[in-house]
Amino acid sequence: MSVYERSVKLHEEKRGKLEVVSKVGITNKEELSLAYSPGVAEPCRRIAERRDDVYKYTSKGNMVAVITDGSAVLGLGNIGPEAALPVMEGKAILLKEFGGVDSIPICLDTQDTDEIVRTCKLLAPGLGGINLEDISAPRCVEIETRLKEELDIPVFHDDQHGTAIVVVAGIINAYKFLKRDLKDARVVVCGAGAAGSSIIKMVKKLGVADILALDVEGIIAREDEEREYDFLTRELSEITNRENIRGGLAEAVVGADIFIGVSAAGILKAEMVETMNRDSVIFAMANPTPEIMPVLALEAGAKIVGTGRSDYPNQVNNVLAFPGLFRGALDAGAKKITEEMKMAAAEGIAGIIAEEELRADYIIPDAFDKRVAPAVAEAVKRLV
Amino acid sequence: MSVYERSVKLHEEKRGKLEVVSKVGITNKEELSLAYSPGVAEPCRRIAERRDDVYKYTSKGNMVAVITDGSAVLGLGNIGPEAALPVMEGKAILLKEFGGVDSIPICLDTQDTDEIVRTCKLLAPGLGGINLEDISAPRCVEIETRLKEELDIPVFHDDQHGTAIVVVAGIINAYKFLKRDLKDARVVVCGAGAAGSSIIKMVKKLGVADILALDVEGIIAREDEEREYDFLTRELSEITNRENIRGGLAEAVVGADIFIGVSAAGILKAEMVETMNRDSVIFAMANPTPEIMPVLALEAGAKIVGTGRSDYPNQVNNVLAFPGLFRGALDAGAKKITEEMKMAAAEGIAGIIAEEELRADYIIPDAFDKRVAPAVAEAVKRLV
Repeated sequence: MSVYERSVKLHEEKRGKLEVVSKVGITNKEELSLAYSPGVAEPCRRIAERRDDVYKYTSKGNMVAVITDGSAVLGLGNIGPEAALPVMEGKAILLKEFGGVDSIPICLDTQDTDEIVRTCKLLAPGLGGINLEDISAPRCVEIETRLKEELDIPVFHDDQHGTAIVVVAGIINAYKFLKRDLKDARVVVCGAGAAGSSIIKMVKKLGVADILALDVEGIIAREDEEREYDFLTRELSEITNRENIRGGLAEAVVGADIFIGVSAAGILKAEMVETMNRDSVIFAMANPTPEIMPVLALEAGAKIVGTGRSDYPNQVNNVLAFPGLFRGALDAGAKKITEEMKMAAAEGIAGIIAEEELRADYIIPDAFDKRVAPAVAEAVKRLV
Repeated sequence: MSVYERSVKLHEEKRGKLEVVSKVGITNKEELSLAYSPGVAEPCRRIAERRDDVYKYTSKGNMVAVITDGSAVLGLGNIGPEAALPVMEGKAILLKEFGGVDSIPICLDTQDTDEIVRTCKLLAPGLGGINLEDISAPRCVEIETRLKEELDIPVFHDDQHGTAIVVVAGIINAYKFLKRDLKDARVVVCGAGAAGSSIIKMVKKLGVADILALDVEGIIAREDEEREYDFLTRELSEITNRENIRGGLAEAVVGADIFIGVSAAGILKAEMVETMNRDSVIFAMANPTPEIMPVLALEAGAKIVGTGRSDYPNQVNNVLAFPGLFRGALDAGAKKITEEMKMAAAEGIAGIIAEEELRADYIIPDAFDKRVAPAVAEAVKRLV
């Protein structure tokens, strides 16, 4: 049976992947009187008097909602809120398993930006945080930005920042291993949606000055009459491409040191890799088929290759980032996930592998490395 | 330590009462590839093709949201969504413990009727049902009515119907024990809010023709110039009080057979009970202090007395109704909770006690009687 058939069987047998259980006993009158009526009135009264006590007496402080509108689910596209639920449940159990964070999947029956923002705000009293998931770009950026401004609980869009954090951890370690300076690097980011834009901003924050961003129309440049800008491509045109060049991927990668792909299967050709600088670094994260297969990239001169797949070295797996990030933010009572916290998370992931342990095929820790989430949580907490 | 102090201690130690756990393993790559990427894409694709498969591959079919706006929490009033959370968590763990139903607490940051209705509809794709909780009357009636019309998942407002179902079970058994016919009964319902109005409708369905409803202004009558009707009191004025009499509680109970109180502590005086018919039946459910204490009611001539308290016989405890009701509705794939299902639930509860076991102080089964929820679920399922 294929992984798909086995997955269907598992989902059908279990009828979904999560359940909600009690942390307290309610099997006799005494227990019921404490967990529920009449005893429960007292925690209620205390929270009514002092709202912040909700963190003291309820699950709020450890409860994250995984919220989607089903508009950009995995590589499947706009399949709607019901069909997105298996992914949201998966995310929820990952949060618990890797970060000890409780979470509930929320699949919204709307794709209207204002309504999504409003609904998240209405749900906030019972939530310790919000993980936005599988919402299409550029709406996801607007939704996250507005919620960060308007809510006092951590809001995080994993599709944007999860991949970015892990890729940045990979770049940090790749350059440590290669003993190079990121200030001199030329970076090409192919794919300028949710993940791409966040990667670009984090790479900039690493000190990289020379970045080219590409979308389906090619290199994003300023004052390009043939392009219709949305707020995201406009912003990217302003912070990348300092020489304001134009062209496609073949033009972009000439002389580049790092290629980061969050785009489409097979679009980075071996001939293109050959035009990059020596010992280049390639993160080809299109799923399930990368922009270039690792063996081809290495043959064409790349030194370090990472993908989104678990069957190749250097897997860029978001699970390295979001569970520890939420764990740290919740433990510290953070009101926001800041840029600094995301960078600290990347450094936390990178730091798991000691400099002398680094190898070309081991610059990103394994997804199941138990040290990662606590290290990320600790790094994030220090900033609150 | 009082029950309140012990409850505070419990809530603080556990930081809330519920957690969300995985039903599947995700501790290695193989498991992760089935529960999450890439395997999860296949259940998603199947649901995208056939929306009803969401019941087959996800937790939706067993997942209820316990939703409040914090406007009428226990006897504490409008204490807001955060302060309502301990009650919602309590309800959630009761659903799991007694009915095997998973549920998530949702505390909404709005008390606008339209917005509550809209939000519930937006949340519906991931939910198997909705339990409305602690929303003030008459809004709760409107919200439930609209959601029942507009959604294809069971919606149930426990404050309205939970108490009603259990009281009706009590009345059925009381009249069986007393060997009387309900058609001849005169019933006084004191309190015409969420619970009172549902009780009145169910009692009517039992075949009782002579019902008086009272609120703080006295007996609800038609064409009462001194009264400002809302849609609920207008409706009740039309279906009760066939002689259209006016007056207060003292006038109402004269010659009555059954008193049902969902009102305020101590308002039913012993002298009033003396004016009721012989061997009357009294359900005094004001919490924590009933409309009349059982010993006083019995001394004044009542034959059967029930309260909302666990320290007296015949406790009217909603937990007898809602877990089994949701269990049955979910198992049967019901699209609605119908009047017939509520009545079946009442009969299911009543039927737990065999006729020969009935005693004046044992007409309602114990809240922890393990037979109740399955019996209710079975009775409800038969109707779908």
